Amino acid sequence: MSANPALIMIDVQMAFVEFERAGKQRNNPGALDNMARLLETFRRHGMAIFHIRHASVEKDSALRPERSGYQPIPPAAEKAGEPVLVKHVNSAFIGTDLEKLLRKGNHQTLVIAGITTNHCVETTTRMAGNLGFEARLVSDACYTFDRVGFDGRPESAETIHNMTLSNLNGEFASIVTTDAVIAAVADNIAA
Amino acid sequence: MSANPALIMIDVQMAFVEFERAGKQRNNPGALDNMARLLETFRRHGMAIFHIRHASVEKDSALRPERSGYQPIPPAAEKAGEPVLVKHVNSAFIGTDLEKLLRKGNHQTLVIAGITTNHCVETTTRMAGNLGFEARLVSDACYTFDRVGFDGRPESAETIHNMTLSNLNGEFASIVTTDAVIAAVADNIAA
Repeated sequence: MSANPALIMIDVQMAFVEFERAGKQRNNPGALDNMARLLETFRRHGMAIFHIRHASVEKDSALRPERSGYQPIPPAAEKAGEPVLVKHVNSAFIGTDLEKLLRKGNHQTLVIAGITTNHCVETTTRMAGNLGFEARLVSDACYTFDRVGFDGRPESAETIHNMTLSNLNGEFASIVTTDAVIAAVADNIAA
Repeated sequence: MSANPALIMIDVQMAFVEFERAGKQRNNPGALDNMARLLETFRRHGMAIFHIRHASVEKDSALRPERSGYQPIPPAAEKAGEPVLVKHVNSAFIGTDLEKLLRKGNHQTLVIAGITTNHCVETTTRMAGNLGFEARLVSDACYTFDRVGFDGRPESAETIHNMTLSNLNGEFASIVTTDAVIAAVADNIAA
């Protein structure tokens, strides 16, 4: 990991908690704890954190800014002074200053976590890699939900999540764990 | 489909034929025939076609421009006068004039086909949708290959391909067939 990484926390918003409360099944039950551990580590060492928030423009979305689902999930909420970038599409690089801010801060390595693995996290990670950043997707600090697939068959959250890891691995990003990121930060600090 | 669609043919290059000759298994055996049918339809009606070619900068890639794998696969090769845009990463929108040319030509609907479904086709389609285009991914005019997944388990080309369709469907694009595109073009012409 290069010396000046940035943590990108994508769409960690209450809409996804509301989906679960309504009965939707997800994978990675420890993901929010891991996001909190990543945030704590980056904060403790004064390293860069960018929070990304999705403000939907779709009529019925739970992520519309006036709805309860727009609010951050408490363990991953921003602290005063941490930048929050608002986006309207899946990619955190489209319609925002994210790329400019990362270049300005000389953040070549991006540690990426958030919700959901296969939509906003995956799209942002694909673009991060294609824009030339060294992307690290934290596999146990993101999650997704069960759904019915395009062909009408049920797909489990874990299967969907794992396919994202396979699609991104080596081509767009390295796949890492929360423990590995925390260990790499400690190594950087010690170096 | 809006009145002035553009056909985007992504990375239909000999490297992928070479992979097959070397024993790699793929899905959608009719995909090249379908790409040729799409091209024939768009040409016959004088509609816009953009060919995207991947020029790899990776040392060992079969898609490096000096290698045989860089050449177009004959049924999908460009005709004189058709624009060919060269890219170096998965997304056809990064490092190219594609977005500018599409806006200039007022092409709101993009019909997207090519190779491989889950890498360059999917990344380009995600960006197309996020950039505000009406993306139509032609499910039977793209394909991918079997592989070993991130978790070490084999994944079939068909499973990988179908997961891309599920991830894109409704969120980034409409999933269509070659027959449906050709019928829609005929309807547009008749209208």
